[in-house]
Amino acid sequence: MHTDLVAALDIGGTKIAAALVDGDGALLVRAQRPTPARESAEAVMGAVTEVLAELSGSPLWGRATAVGIGSAGPVDASAGTVSPVNVPGWRDFPLVERVGKAVGGLPVELVGDGVAMTAAEHWLGAARGYDNALCMVVSTGVGGGLVLGGKLHPGATGNAGHIGHVSVDLDGDPCPCGSRGCVERIASGPNIARRALEAGWRPGPDGDASAAAVAAAARAGDPVALASFERAAQALAAGIAATAALVEIDIAVIGGGVAGAGDILFAPLRRALRQYATLSFIRRIEVTPAVMGTDAGLVGAAAAAARVGPGGVAAQS
Amino acid sequence: MHTDLVAALDIGGTKIAAALVDGDGALLVRAQRPTPARESAEAVMGAVTEVLAELSGSPLWGRATAVGIGSAGPVDASAGTVSPVNVPGWRDFPLVERVGKAVGGLPVELVGDGVAMTAAEHWLGAARGYDNALCMVVSTGVGGGLVLGGKLHPGATGNAGHIGHVSVDLDGDPCPCGSRGCVERIASGPNIARRALEAGWRPGPDGDASAAAVAAAARAGDPVALASFERAAQALAAGIAATAALVEIDIAVIGGGVAGAGDILFAPLRRALRQYATLSFIRRIEVTPAVMGTDAGLVGAAAAAARVGPGGVAAQS
Repeated sequence: MHTDLVAALDIGGTKIAAALVDGDGALLVRAQRPTPARESAEAVMGAVTEVLAELSGSPLWGRATAVGIGSAGPVDASAGTVSPVNVPGWRDFPLVERVGKAVGGLPVELVGDGVAMTAAEHWLGAARGYDNALCMVVSTGVGGGLVLGGKLHPGATGNAGHIGHVSVDLDGDPCPCGSRGCVERIASGPNIARRALEAGWRPGPDGDASAAAVAAAARAGDPVALASFERAAQALAAGIAATAALVEIDIAVIGGGVAGAGDILFAPLRRALRQYATLSFIRRIEVTPAVMGTDAGLVGAAAAAARVGPGGVAAQS
Repeated sequence: MHTDLVAALDIGGTKIAAALVDGDGALLVRAQRPTPARESAEAVMGAVTEVLAELSGSPLWGRATAVGIGSAGPVDASAGTVSPVNVPGWRDFPLVERVGKAVGGLPVELVGDGVAMTAAEHWLGAARGYDNALCMVVSTGVGGGLVLGGKLHPGATGNAGHIGHVSVDLDGDPCPCGSRGCVERIASGPNIARRALEAGWRPGPDGDASAAAVAAAARAGDPVALASFERAAQALAAGIAATAALVEIDIAVIGGGVAGAGDILFAPLRRALRQYATLSFIRRIEVTPAVMGTDAGLVGAAAAAARVGPGGVAAQS
């Protein structure tokens, strides 16, 4: 018997990816284009139309019952629009309507990329089996999403779990979002690198001044590099502890390039959590690396869409 | 026709109150005792037994279908135990089991007092009609609770919405909870008064050095008093903005003695929120005073219990 599929779209500032996803989370057909991020709204939409056309050329397309979109934010799921920070041509762009037309009226579900990643980790990854989880991406930015009571919690506009812009330092450095002391302003890769450079760390002969290079220096014992990760870990711990105090979570799953630093991040993070997560009901939070990798956006968009249509993936999972 | 009732218990460090509550939230029979907070576990339980005995002496008792308990925290709803900070004799005290025995096996629902207050404001108060709300009590401490997707979100242990111990200043002053820079450490009444005194404010001839006296001085234009409320407002705003970024809320309802300062608190709070709540999906949060007053704990405990038994208040509301 042929089971239903979901068409998944992962919209980022660098690439636009699409796939047909089955009820086990397998990506059966894939398509991808670079995001023409500096071009017009219609040029960006053109790339979306192309990846959808590539999928719909597959003989499997007839089994698609819904479309799931995970998009760089902010999104507005209630209005069906997206305004990705890194795609200036799209401001309140009616992506749900446009994709709906392109796919002949299949139901379309839109969530933020942090919510999509969370759906993937909860469905098939490190948060599987946990009813209350925070999943995060710590990379160029810091994003996230929540599972509450066993279900994805996208929020009314699809942006819930936005831990990157939780202020953990109300008098801290201004954040591009307009607030101060946001988790992202302290813990993102570029901010880890910036802080190390400001404190005197210098890249090696290859000139690599990324957070990954700071992590390598930290692994070799460089105290400035270690201190920059320690500070990032403090901010992440304060944000995770805040989330736990507010909604009660059992696990925090962390992916993204900065999480690739491994124990250089996770060891001080677990120490800092003991400092900030002190209440009896949040003391036992687990912190663990994400496992879904770069396909998390597509798998999660499919998982989010499976909540939409009758006969979707949810019916089989 | 006689409708069902719920027996509500409100357990605080000062008083233990009980009531029979109908499907409209009316308190039909009341009982109250001072909390023997410094006495043994059994002495405190004795006061609970007495108020329940008083209720069960009422001819209306036969219509009670469930018991709702809102207790000073931390509570552990999953274990049925309470450990109120201000009642040292009760540590992991099996309140649900003991109350269940005292009422002959009626179903018993336990939530934290912040969650109970939230249930009351959502059922009949300032959060009525809002599907996503944070309700707070700013008083000797700072507590709270959440409504998400139209429903109370007590969390697995009944402590969700614990905004008082969200750190908004990760390098800030140590909080008795063990963390640093918690909202409560900055915004509670005693901390508003402490900060004003440290900055040179002096009480009037009556010697009143409470947050209410600081509010009165602020209303008369005292700059130190104004600054102390301004700082409390910043911490509350950062905490509310964090909650909105994490779960998406439409309204924050604030009760408790400090909220009684009115515009002395709410005006700088609304200003500070514009600074911290900058993301598109959280910019429109409303902030409004609570309306349920001192009965919120009992009404909310009844509302929480109405989710328990078949034929409870929920069936009529």
